[in-house]
Amino acid sequence: MSIRYPNGKAYIPKQNDRNKVSKKNSISYGNRGMSLEEDINISNEYYLAKGIAVIHKKPTPLQIVKVDYPKRSAAVIKEAYFQQASTTDYNGVFKGKYIDFEAKETKNKTSFPLKNFHKHQIEHMGQVLSQQGICFALLRFSTIDEVYLLDAEHLCSFWYKQEHDRKSIPKSEIEALGHAIGNGLYPRIDYLSVVENIYFVH
Amino acid sequence: MSIRYPNGKAYIPKQNDRNKVSKKNSISYGNRGMSLEEDINISNEYYLAKGIAVIHKKPTPLQIVKVDYPKRSAAVIKEAYFQQASTTDYNGVFKGKYIDFEAKETKNKTSFPLKNFHKHQIEHMGQVLSQQGICFALLRFSTIDEVYLLDAEHLCSFWYKQEHDRKSIPKSEIEALGHAIGNGLYPRIDYLSVVENIYFVH
Repeated sequence: MSIRYPNGKAYIPKQNDRNKVSKKNSISYGNRGMSLEEDINISNEYYLAKGIAVIHKKPTPLQIVKVDYPKRSAAVIKEAYFQQASTTDYNGVFKGKYIDFEAKETKNKTSFPLKNFHKHQIEHMGQVLSQQGICFALLRFSTIDEVYLLDAEHLCSFWYKQEHDRKSIPKSEIEALGHAIGNGLYPRIDYLSVVENIYFVH
Repeated sequence: MSIRYPNGKAYIPKQNDRNKVSKKNSISYGNRGMSLEEDINISNEYYLAKGIAVIHKKPTPLQIVKVDYPKRSAAVIKEAYFQQASTTDYNGVFKGKYIDFEAKETKNKTSFPLKNFHKHQIEHMGQVLSQQGICFALLRFSTIDEVYLLDAEHLCSFWYKQEHDRKSIPKSEIEALGHAIGNGLYPRIDYLSVVENIYFVH
């Protein structure tokens, strides 16, 4: 489903937005069919319950235009629009350090399209890096079920080069510069084990 | 304006939500009439522009019930409800450290009502403290225009005691345990100077 903003930009509703509207779409068979977002949310719940980290997905930003305030019942938003996020979707704290990341998936098998990240997110990542925050992207190749952590510095570098270079990151580069994250049951995507190995000195 | 949730809980729209709906309410005369939220947002923009810190307010969480996807135009949310946030409103990174806080104001002059904080927020603050994050509340006494930073540990302690004790924190306690934040022009509420003095060893 592709929708157009008044500015002519296409809006493709996220798996998550559609689930909010109709639960019918969220039936899953094991790990197959689970969106990356759902898997990360479940992993974050695990981390929270075990006291490992406090990481949440930010709510989708909406522009509210019209609200009804009926007597003796809840305020109802009658007109609102999806807004483009000015930051990444996930942030929180792990062992005192600030963690910030974006998660995206592609059906491609050999490269990751850079159009998955927009300018504001890339700028935000640069700002977080300047503040010595830990910042990265989780990239899933959904058809082959592989997830990689790629540090924001590499991602931003590819993103800024795309005008004169490739519009996607070759998978071979992601394998070389990033870190594979194994799939598990608890947590589903144990990205913090990888974060600990990369960013924390032992 | 007081609205009731289906669960019978009153919903009082925030200054910010009302502004989104009608800009008529947001006329301000100097600092008077500026909500604490607006002042903090402006301070955060200043910190971001100066490369001092990356701190954002999280979007208001909404439960989306109905979305229209008209052809050739933007998706329109036709029915949605305000949800209670499960975390604090602000977080981000300052010198590599995770910063997390809630901002509230009262018209009272001698004490700060604890009903401004709900259970999920207090629990979230406890979780952040366990992860060695920097966590606090910014409390404004709006009629006398004084703002204090109170560490989450003190706030949580008062909150959990309220069942058998006072339902508000006496201002004298906030003065003794907290830290006054001066009002300025740039930034309006320079809470990070205070954070640096309290939490960072020089």
